[in-house]
Amino acid sequence: MSKWLFFATMCVVGWPAQAHNLMPAPAKMTPGSGRLPVDGSFRIGFESYQEPRLKSAAARLLRQIVHQTGIPIAADLPGDASSAALLIHCDHAGAAVQNLREDESYRLSVTSRQARLTAATPLGVLRGLATFAQLVEPDAQGFGIAAVEIEDSPRFPWRGLMIDVARHFIPLPVLKRHLDGMAAVKLNVFHWHLSDDQGFRVESRKFPKLHQMGSDGRYFTQDQVRELLAYARERGIRVVPEFDMPGHTSAWFPGYPELASGPGPHQIERRWGIFDPCMDPTREEVYRFLDTFIGEMAALFPDEYFHIGGDEVNGKLWSSIPRFAEFKQKHGMKSNEDLQAYFSRRVQALVQKHGKKTIGWDEILHPDLPKSIVVHSWRGQKSLAEAARMGFSGILSNGYYLDLSHPAGEHYLVDPLGDAAAALTPEQKKLVLGGEACMWMEYATERNVDDRIWPRTAAIAERLWSPQELRDVPDMYRRLAVAGRTLDWTGVDHQWQYEQALQRLAGVHPVEPVRVLAEVVEPIKNYGRGQARSYTQQTPLNRLVDTALPSSDRAREFSDLIDRLPASSAEVRRWILLWRDNDARLRPWFAGSALLAEAAPVSANLAAVAAAALEALDYRESGQHPTAEWRQEKLALLDRAARPQAEVLLSVVPPVRKLIESVR
Amino acid sequence: MSKWLFFATMCVVGWPAQAHNLMPAPAKMTPGSGRLPVDGSFRIGFESYQEPRLKSAAARLLRQIVHQTGIPIAADLPGDASSAALLIHCDHAGAAVQNLREDESYRLSVTSRQARLTAATPLGVLRGLATFAQLVEPDAQGFGIAAVEIEDSPRFPWRGLMIDVARHFIPLPVLKRHLDGMAAVKLNVFHWHLSDDQGFRVESRKFPKLHQMGSDGRYFTQDQVRELLAYARERGIRVVPEFDMPGHTSAWFPGYPELASGPGPHQIERRWGIFDPCMDPTREEVYRFLDTFIGEMAALFPDEYFHIGGDEVNGKLWSSIPRFAEFKQKHGMKSNEDLQAYFSRRVQALVQKHGKKTIGWDEILHPDLPKSIVVHSWRGQKSLAEAARMGFSGILSNGYYLDLSHPAGEHYLVDPLGDAAAALTPEQKKLVLGGEACMWMEYATERNVDDRIWPRTAAIAERLWSPQELRDVPDMYRRLAVAGRTLDWTGVDHQWQYEQALQRLAGVHPVEPVRVLAEVVEPIKNYGRGQARSYTQQTPLNRLVDTALPSSDRAREFSDLIDRLPASSAEVRRWILLWRDNDARLRPWFAGSALLAEAAPVSANLAAVAAAALEALDYRESGQHPTAEWRQEKLALLDRAARPQAEVLLSVVPPVRKLIESVR
Repeated sequence: MSKWLFFATMCVVGWPAQAHNLMPAPAKMTPGSGRLPVDGSFRIGFESYQEPRLKSAAARLLRQIVHQTGIPIAADLPGDASSAALLIHCDHAGAAVQNLREDESYRLSVTSRQARLTAATPLGVLRGLATFAQLVEPDAQGFGIAAVEIEDSPRFPWRGLMIDVARHFIPLPVLKRHLDGMAAVKLNVFHWHLSDDQGFRVESRKFPKLHQMGSDGRYFTQDQVRELLAYARERGIRVVPEFDMPGHTSAWFPGYPELASGPGPHQIERRWGIFDPCMDPTREEVYRFLDTFIGEMAALFPDEYFHIGGDEVNGKLWSSIPRFAEFKQKHGMKSNEDLQAYFSRRVQALVQKHGKKTIGWDEILHPDLPKSIVVHSWRGQKSLAEAARMGFSGILSNGYYLDLSHPAGEHYLVDPLGDAAAALTPEQKKLVLGGEACMWMEYATERNVDDRIWPRTAAIAERLWSPQELRDVPDMYRRLAVAGRTLDWTGVDHQWQYEQALQRLAGVHPVEPVRVLAEVVEPIKNYGRGQARSYTQQTPLNRLVDTALPSSDRAREFSDLIDRLPASSAEVRRWILLWRDNDARLRPWFAGSALLAEAAPVSANLAAVAAAALEALDYRESGQHPTAEWRQEKLALLDRAARPQAEVLLSVVPPVRKLIESVR
Repeated sequence: MSKWLFFATMCVVGWPAQAHNLMPAPAKMTPGSGRLPVDGSFRIGFESYQEPRLKSAAARLLRQIVHQTGIPIAADLPGDASSAALLIHCDHAGAAVQNLREDESYRLSVTSRQARLTAATPLGVLRGLATFAQLVEPDAQGFGIAAVEIEDSPRFPWRGLMIDVARHFIPLPVLKRHLDGMAAVKLNVFHWHLSDDQGFRVESRKFPKLHQMGSDGRYFTQDQVRELLAYARERGIRVVPEFDMPGHTSAWFPGYPELASGPGPHQIERRWGIFDPCMDPTREEVYRFLDTFIGEMAALFPDEYFHIGGDEVNGKLWSSIPRFAEFKQKHGMKSNEDLQAYFSRRVQALVQKHGKKTIGWDEILHPDLPKSIVVHSWRGQKSLAEAARMGFSGILSNGYYLDLSHPAGEHYLVDPLGDAAAALTPEQKKLVLGGEACMWMEYATERNVDDRIWPRTAAIAERLWSPQELRDVPDMYRRLAVAGRTLDWTGVDHQWQYEQALQRLAGVHPVEPVRVLAEVVEPIKNYGRGQARSYTQQTPLNRLVDTALPSSDRAREFSDLIDRLPASSAEVRRWILLWRDNDARLRPWFAGSALLAEAAPVSANLAAVAAAALEALDYRESGQHPTAEWRQEKLALLDRAARPQAEVLLSVVPPVRKLIESVR
């Protein structure tokens, strides 16, 4: 039984008359008539302002088109620019350092003769090229673009992706892939979470023991940082570095114990969680260190913002060690929060001294701080609204935590100006700058980070770019399926990472029964992971839970099929039979594979749930009625099967519950 | 219906008691008891001789194991080498330039305590590490290696892969992937076909117009060549460059028309075939040029062999232009063959002058040449035998042409010492040095070259490495399926290239119906391609024929299912139904996709053939007998469906024919 069973059915569902496959959807789009061919003669020309960044963006687009279409296209410029299939007009240069006030709007007009992309700045051109790439599709003549007029600009100026490279290190080539993915969906801020308890990941020439003793040798040299910065700038992406402090700093202390609140011994933290070690806010030496350190990093990273973290200080050392009580008393502080606020103000001043604006997590918010700071909210729109009312800017990440394994549809509906922020005045709303998807790396490595981040992040990117009223979740999923594929043409590796994870699980066996199981399970949600077993940085992440995608398309699609019974009856039956029989295929391999054996109870549950579903379907189709006992028994079975096993959830339980409840 | 249907069935077939998954199979292998765990504590140690090549080989093995298992393993050396999980003992250094007499044997002893790899040379260590990597498998405790004793050495010293980078250019990173694949299956010669009518692909500093005017800017700089040479040496692979002459030289002449037999005008050839342009063997100027050129390239490429091509000179210019007749007459030559032999002798002398031995295609063979030359036979074992009887060494490529789309099982049974060579004396047989798989690039690009070369080449690698008596084709296919997967852990991209080709074809549609069709077709065989339409270097290779793998596993497996009727009846029926219904899934997309529309008749044939198969199956199962007319009609249908359409063959026709013929 293969995927098309569902997809083919999906295609029966009517699409909007002007369906398009763009993601994020443009602000305004009017279909034209005719098509612009994309063939071996395709060329890109420029008129007016040019710069190397535009040239290399055009070359990238060409490479992507060649890759997607398989058509060899020469990279030479057209003899006469105005005859190019794609003619780019850029008014003028962009800012020397990209900033969040820069114009990203563009117009793209495609006729059967030519596509014209017009923008004020190179940033606008980059956004327009991302749209152009998504417009190229197979058609009756080969490949081409249907004629269209697009006028587009972003809703929010800050559209970010945060990647935590501290808990598990992510090498440079992998980060570059993600920047390509970001550019494809018009994200414009890469938030680089560079230090945490589990690792200090950037070379400091002023304080080399930071990376030497805090990274197990896995850090970015300053040359690599500059390489990434250039790569990001080429793609219209700002890079905001984060050095989380005063908490989440265990990895700083093996090299520089004098920064720590506690006496040590200090070591890189290998576990996950919130830990006691934190910087000592009472010592001037700490601020002198940070002055030099922030100066070094402020010079390395050109962005106007500098992220100082500030989250999750548990304050235990500040409560238990007498000198902190003395300090608080001496300075009239009532709480550890006051002590942290003092630290934040001091650090903020250092950031400002080095020419940057501060951004930090909710906890740094304090009325005394200058209005230039940005609050990065992991707590929610309420924090943003509170900050805005005090005159502070903010961005949202609550609701966009990719590592919590929520489906794209949930992230999609989270709006930075929704919930508590909806009540803000128009002026206050302007202080809400956007949001960031966050990928915390406790339970992901370079080997599955692509399929944790993508394609879900495209849905968040649309929320941050496209008009607020766009909230059609089924249409989003339809386009996300296409975006997921085109992201791979840009270099993101999410599809292949998933395949490789399945093959890793399958070992020398055929992959298909493993796929059947993996497709209908999801990792447990929120912070449930790690409650059943203890994890460290060295724990292999090669199990079913690490393979299963954060949200099961199969289960979502099956749920739709159930809603369309009895029309979908044959399809429903085929899936159910496949699931019922899959355990018998897998079972012989359990004894020879610890990785598969862990999945045994999940596989057995799938078989049992499918068998129950089959009985329910038979009842429906035969018109017979089950007994109350039958129903009770099956619902009890579902309750048991709904419990996490091996840290995964069986995601077909809810649709099967619908099916069983539909039989009266 | 998914792949496991077949695979699961396959597993029912008994495996040999001591089944292993190695490819090539080692010369001698004795299972032990117990298992060596491969976990986070896995370390590699050295005793005795060491060199950087061994260190980096160990590091590569570690990376591959981490990738395959998902287990984080630190790259540090064990404190005490003798306690390492894998202890490597190498007697002494290898040759400064790898040569074909070098010892490649190794012993690998794996117990539950330790694996010991012992070899005389680094080459032997590299071969042993390739075996070790294939031994790592999931087991009941996690990952590990079953205890085993292996004593292994190659049957032939020359085990090559030729890649033609002239007809379609293959960039350096792609070549590197193939070197990794070669090393994984113990191939030891990369034959780099660097020039042909369609391109001159290496920088010449002596004659820069060669690459400047002969490559469209797609060539390897000498620095890149050195990079590849180093990469190959690290993997125990010799690099033999080929400069094909006097024919296949169109791309030399735009820059240096004085080398040509004909008057020009000269241009890079864009079509495929055998063309008239060739070097002028009558002018001393040509030999002076080649003296300098061969001198330059002999210095760049360290291998002791230098391939001068020599194939497919059609001699038209030599027959039609009077000065060649005069030259032949003056020198007592009777034919163009004599003229070419004269050229070969002259070039051979230049190669020798620059310290190299000559290798060339069959045509260069001439009794006057020194016995140091090697005949590279595209014609077959008869040529090899003839050469051996004259005292010349030879290698075989006839039967190993990957671009002719034959199944692995066919290549596998071709033996350099088979057919005409079987009658050689033991002494003569020693002159048969091995063979080379050849990938000519008329109908492949960098985007599908991985899935044309792999995994089939692993079967050829086994023929060249493993004992001659190994001829169990089903067991080869079983191991090839595993090797295909492990090749991907080494960096070969064949599985993902196939997926991407399917996605390219599918465009915005789900990929599964496209996969169902692509799985049961094969590109037409031998030189049938290009007869229905004309190709040039610029023709997109993005169609069904470019996607379909050279031999359909699905059809082979279905054929086995037919042989096992009636036991396999349910499986057979499932496949038939899938195929019968697939056309209805695909058909709605034909109007909107030229690429898919081309496949329409193939898809319709599949549906018709499947419908006929279903009728036959129903007859078998019902015990009813069809009429003679029915049978005749169905066989006529199969005859029609067996004809190539869109340059592909419907590979399920033969098994369905068996099914229909089985119904009496």
